Amino acid sequence: MSENTAPIPVKEYLLALEPGAHGGLIRKSSQEYCIPEDEILDASASLNPFGTPFEYPYTGLDLNLLLDRGLEKMEQYPDNRYLEYRKAAAEFTGMGVVPENIIPGNGSTEIIRLVTECVIEEGDSVLIPQPTFSEYEVQCRVLGANIKYIRQQDLLSLNGDILGDAKILFVCNPNNPTGQLFTREQIADIAEKCARNDTLLFVDEAFIELADPDQSVADMVEANNYLFIQRSLTKAFAIPGIRMGFGIASTSFAKVLNNARLSWNLGSIADNVATALLKMEGGVNSRYLVESRELIETERDYLTQKLNRRGFKPFKSSVNYIFVDISEFSMNSTELAQRMASHGVLIRDCSSFQEIGDDYIRVAVRTREENDRILQTIKQVISEWGREQAEAMLDANLEKAADCGRLGSNTDCDYYPCHFEGQDCTLCFCPFYPCEDERTGGQWIESSSGGKVWSCLYCDIVHKPEVVDDVLSVLVKEGRNEKSIKKAWKNALETRL
Amino acid sequence: MSENTAPIPVKEYLLALEPGAHGGLIRKSSQEYCIPEDEILDASASLNPFGTPFEYPYTGLDLNLLLDRGLEKMEQYPDNRYLEYRKAAAEFTGMGVVPENIIPGNGSTEIIRLVTECVIEEGDSVLIPQPTFSEYEVQCRVLGANIKYIRQQDLLSLNGDILGDAKILFVCNPNNPTGQLFTREQIADIAEKCARNDTLLFVDEAFIELADPDQSVADMVEANNYLFIQRSLTKAFAIPGIRMGFGIASTSFAKVLNNARLSWNLGSIADNVATALLKMEGGVNSRYLVESRELIETERDYLTQKLNRRGFKPFKSSVNYIFVDISEFSMNSTELAQRMASHGVLIRDCSSFQEIGDDYIRVAVRTREENDRILQTIKQVISEWGREQAEAMLDANLEKAADCGRLGSNTDCDYYPCHFEGQDCTLCFCPFYPCEDERTGGQWIESSSGGKVWSCLYCDIVHKPEVVDDVLSVLVKEGRNEKSIKKAWKNALETRL
Repeated sequence: MSENTAPIPVKEYLLALEPGAHGGLIRKSSQEYCIPEDEILDASASLNPFGTPFEYPYTGLDLNLLLDRGLEKMEQYPDNRYLEYRKAAAEFTGMGVVPENIIPGNGSTEIIRLVTECVIEEGDSVLIPQPTFSEYEVQCRVLGANIKYIRQQDLLSLNGDILGDAKILFVCNPNNPTGQLFTREQIADIAEKCARNDTLLFVDEAFIELADPDQSVADMVEANNYLFIQRSLTKAFAIPGIRMGFGIASTSFAKVLNNARLSWNLGSIADNVATALLKMEGGVNSRYLVESRELIETERDYLTQKLNRRGFKPFKSSVNYIFVDISEFSMNSTELAQRMASHGVLIRDCSSFQEIGDDYIRVAVRTREENDRILQTIKQVISEWGREQAEAMLDANLEKAADCGRLGSNTDCDYYPCHFEGQDCTLCFCPFYPCEDERTGGQWIESSSGGKVWSCLYCDIVHKPEVVDDVLSVLVKEGRNEKSIKKAWKNALETRL
Repeated sequence: MSENTAPIPVKEYLLALEPGAHGGLIRKSSQEYCIPEDEILDASASLNPFGTPFEYPYTGLDLNLLLDRGLEKMEQYPDNRYLEYRKAAAEFTGMGVVPENIIPGNGSTEIIRLVTECVIEEGDSVLIPQPTFSEYEVQCRVLGANIKYIRQQDLLSLNGDILGDAKILFVCNPNNPTGQLFTREQIADIAEKCARNDTLLFVDEAFIELADPDQSVADMVEANNYLFIQRSLTKAFAIPGIRMGFGIASTSFAKVLNNARLSWNLGSIADNVATALLKMEGGVNSRYLVESRELIETERDYLTQKLNRRGFKPFKSSVNYIFVDISEFSMNSTELAQRMASHGVLIRDCSSFQEIGDDYIRVAVRTREENDRILQTIKQVISEWGREQAEAMLDANLEKAADCGRLGSNTDCDYYPCHFEGQDCTLCFCPFYPCEDERTGGQWIESSSGGKVWSCLYCDIVHKPEVVDDVLSVLVKEGRNEKSIKKAWKNALETRL
């Protein structure tokens, strides 16, 4: 069916809309790389590595029972007031929050959409510090807002000129993807400046339970209509398949938002499961969440330390993901993420975040075993990449040599002379590597990460001009393949060992 | 906590927003009338009375298995492309619809919101025929649209003047609450007029599987960007607790809507369950849906016929609910609905629909047993109401008699003289009814609906002036209560029988 080209009756700016880019594309990666879904390790989505509360008998939560209860209600419309859910969310949050402050949401994106559509008129300005969660921008674009970027590091020195006529300032705390957590005093300071300039401060606390819930500013909403808080259950309870989140606003602001919210936005299963999770004894300081934060801290330290090498510069994080600067690494973020995905490990290529280019990745903190798999896969990708680069260089040299014979010494090379003065560099990257033949002078040595690696430090045979000539006479004629390499070894090396 | 009265940072028109009124308030009614939820019969929401497909082994659908599959995905983000769901929805719809035409929705309200927010700018006009499903208006009001009402009966004679600069015309087919179904030729005619006037025709086919799916116009979207169709699974499969629906639009229109749609708007359980339901063999003509339509037709005929009395005028319906004009009935729709709810039967008071006042109710077609309960409850409510009216008249008369003695003949009454010329009408409604004492001349007779009823046709004793005086001498002094009535019987009646 070919698309018709007649006008589409939508607001014109929507024609240019692109969907948001996100992590967690397990199914897509599975299809793309032909890897079964259950063999994929997803470190691109930032879920609680401690697992769901249902895995811990001490939570007293029985998922099957909850589902059964949800199912009993399946043949009824959900009660759109969501009274129990709102009560549970208020008590979970604590800090004096009451059910009248709560706006239930089908995941946090629905909450962002709801607030933006209630506040923004086409052409209104909004401030989005970069880099941050992409959904603020996606939802603002649907509303036709004029997006203004500021830098994360400028958030603490905002002034009236910057806030200007901005309708909303979005602050993600802790910030996704950088993992930086502002203290509640810092957020209170931003909130005060926003209120003074009639700018709504939208604080996304989706990850705060996995960082430090004491830094929440939920207690400040009732006195400030220009403060809105978003919370999510997706990350803290590791259940993105059940969509649920909530907003927190002053009673009067929440009332308008609840009126504008979709009827029955939560299905009965989400309503039941989420209510039970929120009612867990201790709220944000339940044993489950305290132990989650302990695991995250230990594993974050481990992963940060291990990542801090080979051109990787991890940022200090307060939460369950690590933002890594790879600008000094040999690959860009897109290539690294794709290569890791081909090995079944998903990390977040941050090139879809605004204004940071392709120099950053985000890696979720997982369990020790999973973190080791992430680290191992990075190493594997680096090693494969090195080999590919080397083979490409060899092929380029062989092509040149086909025209004008061996290339002689490459004195421009930083490593020249890696073996001896006057060496021939045509076979830079040895076509026989690893030959595993100690007659060459090569030998097995300990690798830096344990295990053995074949070292050519004491072999110089392929850099001797006469050897190069003999090897080229085979490889240039027959091309580089398994058979020609065996023949070249026999003709050029075997006789000289 | 008292609400703060500072400004709220939302678009000003939203401050006046009221949430939509809907049926299906089982929990609310249960709390209000202290009736256990499972004893409430909900004929206010219009769900398939045949029950869910899971109750029929021949559908091959195992809910537990589906839930288990959904749960396996609970720890992953849903794949936001929803490829399987869209494929299943396209095949279910048939008529040449392809997955690229499908927009998944978390229930139909989300689809209405999505289309309105993509099309409407504040102040744009929309046309909503009355009466119809209230969510079109609710969602348009959130967007700040200028709502123009037209009459349902004018839909077939629309002209350019009416369409004018309207951005959207909403047509619910079959219409909720009236049950009227337009043919596809009629809708095609409206669509053609809309396209000519650059007005988007939004056809809500939420109930079409329970009426006549052959009247769908799904095949017309690909050639017409000004036609949008909404479908819902809630009604046809009787599962409002799992929110799921979808929109159908041309490939190019659907692409924009899918970009603007919320990420992960369906949770993994809804995604899995809905996909399985849509894949049921036969699609809109599956055995389950064919048998559903058969049941609905039989029971709709039965209920329509039985309702057609006592001031009830049911409209001809094509679907699983009946719209009833009760303007000639003794109660308005709100009072009738409340009185029925107090007996555990919910019907839809249509007074929240625009421009039709409180003269209409909507009653869902249910199973035979449930329909009989609905009819029985209407009778009970009428009977209670009659008694209350009669007792109120008696009390008013007693009050007057307290001032000036018995009232004599009420010759203004349409029924005067109901017993004998010159009768005293003070005790109109006998305080002793039903005395069940045949010495008065009263007797048990057959009631029109079967059963026995106490008839006072041949008793005239309480209309004799001397009896009235003796009764008044007790009731005026002691008030009307069980004890005083016994005493009055003894003093005024017993001696004369």
